[in-house]
Amino acid sequence: MSSSKQPASTSFKAPDSSCLQLDEQGRLRHFLTTEGLSKDVLTEIMDVAESFSTVSNQAVKKVPVLRGKTIVNLFFENSTRTRTTFELAAKRLSADVISLNIATSAAAKGESVLDTIRNLEAMHADMFVVRHSDSGAAHFIARHVAPHVSVINAGDGRHAHPTQAMLDMFTIRRVKNEFTNLKVAIIGDILHSRVARSQIHALNILGAKEVRVIAPKTLLPSDVDSLGVHVYGDLRSGLNDVDVIIMLRLQRERMGGAMLPSEHEYFECFGLTQAKLAYAKPDVTVMHPGPINRGVEMDAAVADGPNSVILQQVTNGIAIRMAVMTLTMGHNRVGG
Amino acid sequence: MSSSKQPASTSFKAPDSSCLQLDEQGRLRHFLTTEGLSKDVLTEIMDVAESFSTVSNQAVKKVPVLRGKTIVNLFFENSTRTRTTFELAAKRLSADVISLNIATSAAAKGESVLDTIRNLEAMHADMFVVRHSDSGAAHFIARHVAPHVSVINAGDGRHAHPTQAMLDMFTIRRVKNEFTNLKVAIIGDILHSRVARSQIHALNILGAKEVRVIAPKTLLPSDVDSLGVHVYGDLRSGLNDVDVIIMLRLQRERMGGAMLPSEHEYFECFGLTQAKLAYAKPDVTVMHPGPINRGVEMDAAVADGPNSVILQQVTNGIAIRMAVMTLTMGHNRVGG
Amino acid sequence: MSSSKQPASTSFKAPDSSCLQLDEQGRLRHFLTTEGLSKDVLTEIMDVAESFSTVSNQAVKKVPVLRGKTIVNLFFENSTRTRTTFELAAKRLSADVISLNIATSAAAKGESVLDTIRNLEAMHADMFVVRHSDSGAAHFIARHVAPHVSVINAGDGRHAHPTQAMLDMFTIRRVKNEFTNLKVAIIGDILHSRVARSQIHALNILGAKEVRVIAPKTLLPSDVDSLGVHVYGDLRSGLNDVDVIIMLRLQRERMGGAMLPSEHEYFECFGLTQAKLAYAKPDVTVMHPGPINRGVEMDAAVADGPNSVILQQVTNGIAIRMAVMTLTMGHNRVGG
Repeated sequence: MSSSKQPASTSFKAPDSSCLQLDEQGRLRHFLTTEGLSKDVLTEIMDVAESFSTVSNQAVKKVPVLRGKTIVNLFFENSTRTRTTFELAAKRLSADVISLNIATSAAAKGESVLDTIRNLEAMHADMFVVRHSDSGAAHFIARHVAPHVSVINAGDGRHAHPTQAMLDMFTIRRVKNEFTNLKVAIIGDILHSRVARSQIHALNILGAKEVRVIAPKTLLPSDVDSLGVHVYGDLRSGLNDVDVIIMLRLQRERMGGAMLPSEHEYFECFGLTQAKLAYAKPDVTVMHPGPINRGVEMDAAVADGPNSVILQQVTNGIAIRMAVMTLTMGHNRVGG
Repeated sequence: MSSSKQPASTSFKAPDSSCLQLDEQGRLRHFLTTEGLSKDVLTEIMDVAESFSTVSNQAVKKVPVLRGKTIVNLFFENSTRTRTTFELAAKRLSADVISLNIATSAAAKGESVLDTIRNLEAMHADMFVVRHSDSGAAHFIARHVAPHVSVINAGDGRHAHPTQAMLDMFTIRRVKNEFTNLKVAIIGDILHSRVARSQIHALNILGAKEVRVIAPKTLLPSDVDSLGVHVYGDLRSGLNDVDVIIMLRLQRERMGGAMLPSEHEYFECFGLTQAKLAYAKPDVTVMHPGPINRGVEMDAAVADGPNSVILQQVTNGIAIRMAVMTLTMGHNRVGG
Repeated sequence: MSSSKQPASTSFKAPDSSCLQLDEQGRLRHFLTTEGLSKDVLTEIMDVAESFSTVSNQAVKKVPVLRGKTIVNLFFENSTRTRTTFELAAKRLSADVISLNIATSAAAKGESVLDTIRNLEAMHADMFVVRHSDSGAAHFIARHVAPHVSVINAGDGRHAHPTQAMLDMFTIRRVKNEFTNLKVAIIGDILHSRVARSQIHALNILGAKEVRVIAPKTLLPSDVDSLGVHVYGDLRSGLNDVDVIIMLRLQRERMGGAMLPSEHEYFECFGLTQAKLAYAKPDVTVMHPGPINRGVEMDAAVADGPNSVILQQVTNGIAIRMAVMTLTMGHNRVGG
């Protein structure tokens, strides 16, 4: 069956495509990664999200910005939580939403993914929100969609999760007002985290004073030196004088294996407690993408304590997703 | 991991919370159980449902009462049928609906349920429709939600299923006009039935002349004497002179075990036939929550016969759910 | 349990019911099969679909034709693809859509299906889109629904798939303008194909000059002679001078069994290549219902080549489904 062999261009490649995300006027067309975007673009996303924040507090939490548009949630990797946030964001923009959970099998790659995309485009889909366990999947789809279709990356392999990163940036900005004076520490499994990569890029683009990662050596990526971060193996020294702590979620199924100590040991070394929090600045902001494993990444007193903005992150996630959907579809204001 | 230990307040408790359902003005804020509510509140629910009944007969079966509201179906126990009725009710009120099926595992309890609730609240959910296999789950959630959020119990363990009970009351009122002259018999597995409990409370609150339960001894709860009912072990004497018969659904998986005879024996003793119906009043009304096991709870001639209002119950179920959603959200009229 | 025995009328029967589809004025009330419909009815479906085609190109792809109507996707056989097209069509008509996937078990037949239907009717459903693995299921349901309810067959067993056939006819008309000069060849597993039957009826009703089927003998139905087609066992002679080629999808799970050669052998004999295409007319149109097994039914060069209208078929499928939904609900124009 040589006729069905995939051409090289249809395999998922390591993405290198800042230009892919922007149109000729430099406006956001897809949202695939924070890497390579300008400070202006990230700032505009947050500004539009700010305007949508008020919408969600209205009695009628709905604006007609994307009325009559068809948004397809294309989830090759299951995530009720993330799918729900995108579905809510789309509905509040008055779009029609179709959610497709597609088992990631041999079939869900290359040509087969393109067939799915082309079929949905033929049904006049306007946007794909893509989640896939393979790095580069959203880029691959973005390279092949029709000119009027936008792609939003809702998490691809270990590569990127840019809407999560931007809701974190938006949350930081709402609490701290700006970035240039901030020391931010990201703690946990950097190696496997698509969120961490997107956060690091965004923080550097927005001009954070210092970005630190705190993790055991086994959970650091080999290219950590090229990411523009300071690396700490010790929580206490890493937390010294920081303004913002971003905890990563620990995949429990990875615990106890070769790479990782037991949950108990991990918590001893890298789990956040009220006592360890004292090493950071008094007004340190604590973030976590959820869902939290209390007693593993942090104890309940920190998670639910006065420094935590974890639930604000969730609220801001809706606004950020509304903003990204609106901007990539060519609108740049509420009601536009 | 003492830090993650659940505080006592987050375990599901036996509910004792008539005040929990009402706000300071005595208006319905959650709808968790019929127990402890006043005749006025139950009557108002039926009056509002009456106004919605006309909506469903219009060409455009939609009112903008809850436009821009976000209703979350939170189903820890699967039920396509019940979920569909709530989803339809919500859509006819123009609300946005998100349906989440959450596997009931060790994780779906206590703190973990609260985390889910807090996350959905942070996304500006306005209402939770909760179904759970544990008694008290909806009460537990109602005790912990934000002030603006309403909870509707769509069935919790063996405890309560108040919207089913109220659609039954509404159906009785539409057929018989009032309650004070009515003798009502509830037949079947009282022990395991959350519906029966909610019905018994509602009938007594609404002033029914007599409430009977007809069941084998093994299917009676130990506190049956405190429920305000007359108990019959024999169908014929139990049916004597009754105005309304409410059949309960028999869980077939319980059949043939220690508690229950075979389906055939059950039908012989407690199954409803046209012949047995003659013991009741000539204009007796026959009800069943569906889906019916024909030949077990009743034969087809009764289920589809002139005394049956089983399909009216389904129709009234949409109106009752629209009414309860509207009232708990602080509206009390169509178009309000 | 003789009381629950199904009466003869509730078993699925071989359908013979052209009158079932039309009301007394001869207008479409259900859409179950193309068989027995008039040229005028099929032409009207295509004319209305033509008007909806422009809707899908608008910025706001939505018309209020079915606002406030409740459409239930009743899928006893799973098909994400087909369900999605009906769901999109319904949403673009502003209807409320409920999708129910019902496992086809012993329970999902006869009385049990009727109970489901009656319950959904009691909830004021206006339309059922039915897919079922048993031939005759949609007819069975149509014979039992309430007068105001419409049924659309989304595929029943080996019997019919009329919306697929009509989107194919619509696609042919858009490319070739009319039917009376056309020679059309249908290639593949005619025996198991509900699509082929519906296409053959539609082509003959619309006056196609010649309808051919090309298939191995083992994949021809025994009544093929009564269908009004010319049968070819050889691809090359069958393709001679044809204007339109309709490929059928090959169920891979049937491959390699008693009936069928290997995928490789099948492709050798009946797979479409650019070389074999040369036997047909130069401007031959190539169609396939999707999803394509590249290298089995046709090679990629044909599927993605200039003669292929496979993606137009998908686009036209939305318009046809909008048209059929609108017509069966008693409307006959956009905005009506």
